[in-house]
Amino acid sequence: MSKQDDSKSELAEREEQLQKRYEAYRALDLNLDLTRGKPSRQQLELSIGLDAPLEDSYVLGDGTDVRNYGGLLGIAPARELGARMLGLRPAEVLVGGNSSLTLMYQYIGFAHLHGLAGPGTAWSAEASASGGKVKFLCPVPGYDRHFTICEHFDIEMINVPIGAGGPDMDAVEALVAADPLVKGIWCVPRYSNPTGHTYSDEVVRRMAGVPKLAGEGFRILWDNAYAVHHLTDDPVPLANLMDECRALETAQGLVVLGSTSKITYAGAGISFLGSDPGNIERFSQHLSASTIGPDKLNQLRHTRFLATSEDLTAHMERHRGIIEPKFRSTLDILAEELGGKDVLEWTTPAGGYFISCDTLRGLAARVVALAADIGVKLTPAGATYPYGRDPEDRNIRLAPTFPPMDELEQAVRVFACCVELASVQQLRAA
Amino acid sequence: MSKQDDSKSELAEREEQLQKRYEAYRALDLNLDLTRGKPSRQQLELSIGLDAPLEDSYVLGDGTDVRNYGGLLGIAPARELGARMLGLRPAEVLVGGNSSLTLMYQYIGFAHLHGLAGPGTAWSAEASASGGKVKFLCPVPGYDRHFTICEHFDIEMINVPIGAGGPDMDAVEALVAADPLVKGIWCVPRYSNPTGHTYSDEVVRRMAGVPKLAGEGFRILWDNAYAVHHLTDDPVPLANLMDECRALETAQGLVVLGSTSKITYAGAGISFLGSDPGNIERFSQHLSASTIGPDKLNQLRHTRFLATSEDLTAHMERHRGIIEPKFRSTLDILAEELGGKDVLEWTTPAGGYFISCDTLRGLAARVVALAADIGVKLTPAGATYPYGRDPEDRNIRLAPTFPPMDELEQAVRVFACCVELASVQQLRAA
Repeated sequence: MSKQDDSKSELAEREEQLQKRYEAYRALDLNLDLTRGKPSRQQLELSIGLDAPLEDSYVLGDGTDVRNYGGLLGIAPARELGARMLGLRPAEVLVGGNSSLTLMYQYIGFAHLHGLAGPGTAWSAEASASGGKVKFLCPVPGYDRHFTICEHFDIEMINVPIGAGGPDMDAVEALVAADPLVKGIWCVPRYSNPTGHTYSDEVVRRMAGVPKLAGEGFRILWDNAYAVHHLTDDPVPLANLMDECRALETAQGLVVLGSTSKITYAGAGISFLGSDPGNIERFSQHLSASTIGPDKLNQLRHTRFLATSEDLTAHMERHRGIIEPKFRSTLDILAEELGGKDVLEWTTPAGGYFISCDTLRGLAARVVALAADIGVKLTPAGATYPYGRDPEDRNIRLAPTFPPMDELEQAVRVFACCVELASVQQLRAA
Repeated sequence: MSKQDDSKSELAEREEQLQKRYEAYRALDLNLDLTRGKPSRQQLELSIGLDAPLEDSYVLGDGTDVRNYGGLLGIAPARELGARMLGLRPAEVLVGGNSSLTLMYQYIGFAHLHGLAGPGTAWSAEASASGGKVKFLCPVPGYDRHFTICEHFDIEMINVPIGAGGPDMDAVEALVAADPLVKGIWCVPRYSNPTGHTYSDEVVRRMAGVPKLAGEGFRILWDNAYAVHHLTDDPVPLANLMDECRALETAQGLVVLGSTSKITYAGAGISFLGSDPGNIERFSQHLSASTIGPDKLNQLRHTRFLATSEDLTAHMERHRGIIEPKFRSTLDILAEELGGKDVLEWTTPAGGYFISCDTLRGLAARVVALAADIGVKLTPAGATYPYGRDPEDRNIRLAPTFPPMDELEQAVRVFACCVELASVQQLRAA
């Protein structure tokens, strides 16, 4: 359907066809779900070896008994694993429990309420003193749980557009330079959630300079959640931001996050927070009020299961073997159903967990509602924007990894039908 | 040594003897530690069965895959385990990660900064509005990590004396009734840390009424850390506070805590928070901003390892078999070295992890320093009081579980020598 050429009657006819198909889907009484950015059962089964008995290895070379209390920084081999995965030095890594989201929440809470460099330096105190509000830059579309943390602490979010090479760095630099209460930026630098973009060398290089434009308390939250989650043979390279920051002496302004949630077990992995060693020390001091230390036994399991870089690479290849066909099938169906119709743009990710779609202006919520009405659950429109507000109401995030293939394919066809139906209805009303 | 009868010269002679013994200990170049309230390696080895492969049991009867994301309340069988251990109903239990301290910290943070019943109800907001400070009652001596949480949130702590039957309830009731900014009380109702006392039925009954004297936002933090950690054949009974609270309709004012840290692995156990189901629901909503859920796989391990009440009882008997001789030996040495000398009072705990000692007035810090000087580390004087301030400088907490028996015995003898030496010196100076 090329909008300009279609006559009114052709549009009416197409709407009738789509409406019939839509009702036929309804009659199937579907119960499908494309919202869940989580591994399938088949993927989880790749990590069965994680659960092998540890037998006599509970006491590490440095005397640490992983079963007992203590060790806020994590065990040495787990710090090494995190360093290898995230391109850091072991002394720059703190290893946490089963959720990197928790580390982000704790770090932001630390900075906002307690102060990264002592009580006087809390972001909230600085904001009160100047009568303003703490602000974060949010490349959009982005990850809803990052935004939830900001909302939770009443941190104002400012949208920054993200393109194929990463966030608009002119905008980032201008916003940071203009307002000392801009205290951070959320980044998913590789296979960004949901767009799948990987930041360019130029963006990474400029990002390393951002803390210099900002004050001491500024932090880049570099959530490298998909560091090793490739879908192609030749992964797009991602420059090492920590290397760049060390060179510019801005490492204090960088906080790297990562986890094994989408490597081993989504709910029972281990998490990493990386920064310069001084930051790591201050953060672990802060954590000492709230925990006796992370689960070191699970850290040990992970370091044994992912003992070498080769183990990790081979393991991620097995994940790719399971999920790549799901991505390909989703993309094939979108091309087959909607190719050339100018009603939907979508990404072709080279890694990560999502396909990002943009409908015609003002149709995302309508498409989600149409699909929900016949039993196909899509991520709520707006979820990829701060405050759940997509200013153009266009973005919809598809998560193909969790459903079995037949359910996935059915759900994507329903989605495509809903997109076209909503689009035709809008064109007819125009 | 009976103070009244000793002549000055006898005291001088005794000091000389003790000083010689003290120097003899110094010559041994000791490196001993009585501070660590944690299980010994032998105890940790009791739980080797926890690490058995789970094989095909990852998917629970309700469809939950314990390896994947989700499930903020914890898995059903773990909620049942917590309920059984803490005398609650499963719907009253949330199961967390490896640290009940973290649950306490999160709960206090929720109440103080966010509000137990919505944004307007934050303790800190109420305090700001009235120009006062949020306060907590702290039965003393008590657990230093409870006090650290209060300090962390700038909550003022008020000492309440604890006796053989629990806190002075006249004081508790009067303080709560007098000031609406008293928002909570810390309790370790069984084998209290460090005194070993178990609250009497009368204290539990009166405690259930305390939320009625306070406002809606008041919480009893009932840290039942030693619920099943008996050292005798006939455990002192502890009345069920939740039952009492349900009867009085004050269950909303009660938060019960517990964990398996001193049952299975100190650093890799599971934790429980109990309250009325409405509180549990609101708290889990709060947690959803900071986590994708607890490690359900470790919860499953625990429910299999501690499948029945009998399993738990038998397991705790094995712990007792290891630690009871250490307590007995410590008490025997104290009696042998200091019995009848009127220089130290100590408790004879029927459970828990500590022996609580009171020196003569003003000597605790001196004793700790004397011991440190010859290589025996004792818990810092004052640690069992808010702000680290023991008003009489008398209390010293001994932790006999961790050291091997020979090191424990040596350390206790040194401790006794330091106590008597400091006492004699004080008496001579008087």
